[in-house]
Amino acid sequence: MSFAAATAMDCTTPGHYRGTIAEGWDIAGNANGGYLLSLAARALSHHTERPDPVTLTAHYLRPGRPGPVSLECETVKTGRLFATVSGRLADAEGKPMLALLGSFGDLAQPISDIRRLDGAPDVTPLEECNRHLGHVQAEEPAAGNGAVPPAFHSKVDLRLDPRDAGFLTATPSGDARMRGWFRLRNDEPMDTLALLTALDAFPPTIFNANLPVAWTPTVELTCHIRSRPPADWLMAQFTSRFVSGGMLEEDGELWTQDGELVAQSRQLALLPRG
Amino acid sequence: MSFAAATAMDCTTPGHYRGTIAEGWDIAGNANGGYLLSLAARALSHHTERPDPVTLTAHYLRPGRPGPVSLECETVKTGRLFATVSGRLADAEGKPMLALLGSFGDLAQPISDIRRLDGAPDVTPLEECNRHLGHVQAEEPAAGNGAVPPAFHSKVDLRLDPRDAGFLTATPSGDARMRGWFRLRNDEPMDTLALLTALDAFPPTIFNANLPVAWTPTVELTCHIRSRPPADWLMAQFTSRFVSGGMLEEDGELWTQDGELVAQSRQLALLPRG
Repeated sequence: MSFAAATAMDCTTPGHYRGTIAEGWDIAGNANGGYLLSLAARALSHHTERPDPVTLTAHYLRPGRPGPVSLECETVKTGRLFATVSGRLADAEGKPMLALLGSFGDLAQPISDIRRLDGAPDVTPLEECNRHLGHVQAEEPAAGNGAVPPAFHSKVDLRLDPRDAGFLTATPSGDARMRGWFRLRNDEPMDTLALLTALDAFPPTIFNANLPVAWTPTVELTCHIRSRPPADWLMAQFTSRFVSGGMLEEDGELWTQDGELVAQSRQLALLPRG
Repeated sequence: MSFAAATAMDCTTPGHYRGTIAEGWDIAGNANGGYLLSLAARALSHHTERPDPVTLTAHYLRPGRPGPVSLECETVKTGRLFATVSGRLADAEGKPMLALLGSFGDLAQPISDIRRLDGAPDVTPLEECNRHLGHVQAEEPAAGNGAVPPAFHSKVDLRLDPRDAGFLTATPSGDARMRGWFRLRNDEPMDTLALLTALDAFPPTIFNANLPVAWTPTVELTCHIRSRPPADWLMAQFTSRFVSGGMLEEDGELWTQDGELVAQSRQLALLPRG
């Protein structure tokens, strides 16, 4: 099943959508948070009649499991550049999984040509990142802290930078960082909705941080999409700088190989109570 | 008028609030975006019965002008740690100014004691940052690009790091960064709602970036509050790394003088169409 099919949403009446969390997009039974966000964003994009989630925030309220979902949404304002929409993705029992707020637009043309970019991240070239996560899983089932997601990583093609893969063999780098490459399987082209999945696809940065933390559930994730992605691999970097108060942030960047920023993200994640 | 009085909101019926955008919290006539967020957050905090905006996102739909406002909100989920709420702040005609989504909690005790903090920002000591913005304005009315806000800066006490104050005299540093110190006037203690104002109080980073950009309206602002602030000055740093596609991000940090992270923010701002 393609990503497009796995994120299809049907409009039943204006502002009401139905869809399905597909099998296999999970991490230990719970659907990947980025995949859930793509699913919800497809409905929001349809409702606003704007293709691109320029800025989209989700609060994660409950894990998602394979099966039917519904989404309700409401446009707050339709402007020239953006349409702002709020919504909720709920499970079959109507319990909310995601609360959403986004401004959708059309990124076919850049809003302005003024540019100033700090350097793209230092990611090992793709051809040297051939130990992708699915492959590592098959060979090393006892790897790391057990949180490496086998099912989800059969759905996307994610190549970890070897410098950040130490956690898989219980030798974390000490640096709260994950770098690598991302694309959909079977050369499926990525739209800006697929970028939302990419922005939550990598293992938690904290796995490399030498902290006694195995699981950091997402409280909130905000994605900023700057441009439509090319039909090619994207370079990715995720970093965390501050663990305090029981929380940490994880900042993400997606880049083209030509050094164009495609998207940024920040999520707030929760530490287990100490 | 105190900050607390300037952000008072009255509950009329559950989920409905009325308040007033006070005079003098504006930048060239438009209320400061952080002040608007504090005003809205006070109602959301009351509605959820949780004091602290742990993560709060606002989409800015229209400028706010002094006068009556109303807020409507709805709790999406009440959990053990957080209550998640969505809302809208509207002007006297009912037109939405802010669309909001937040998870509120109680930060009286940290959720976990596990800590890992990158260094606090390099900010010039407070006693050497005595050219605060209000003061500079009075002395140098023709300063910089004309976007320095006089009214708002009589309401808060904001001291710019001299290294980042060059834009005031048309000698921007070339580095898209603003650092300095923040507190409320008259020693008014800051709660976590006041931090939302602090996170949008400094001049745009882009003023120091040597770009032909004078005005970058906020599309979206997300604030993460890690802890309650002490009754003292806060150290602040705002940076922008990526201007592309007609947008830029501005990342903020607020710190205690003891090197504790109090809050983080990221906003997406818009460049004028090129």
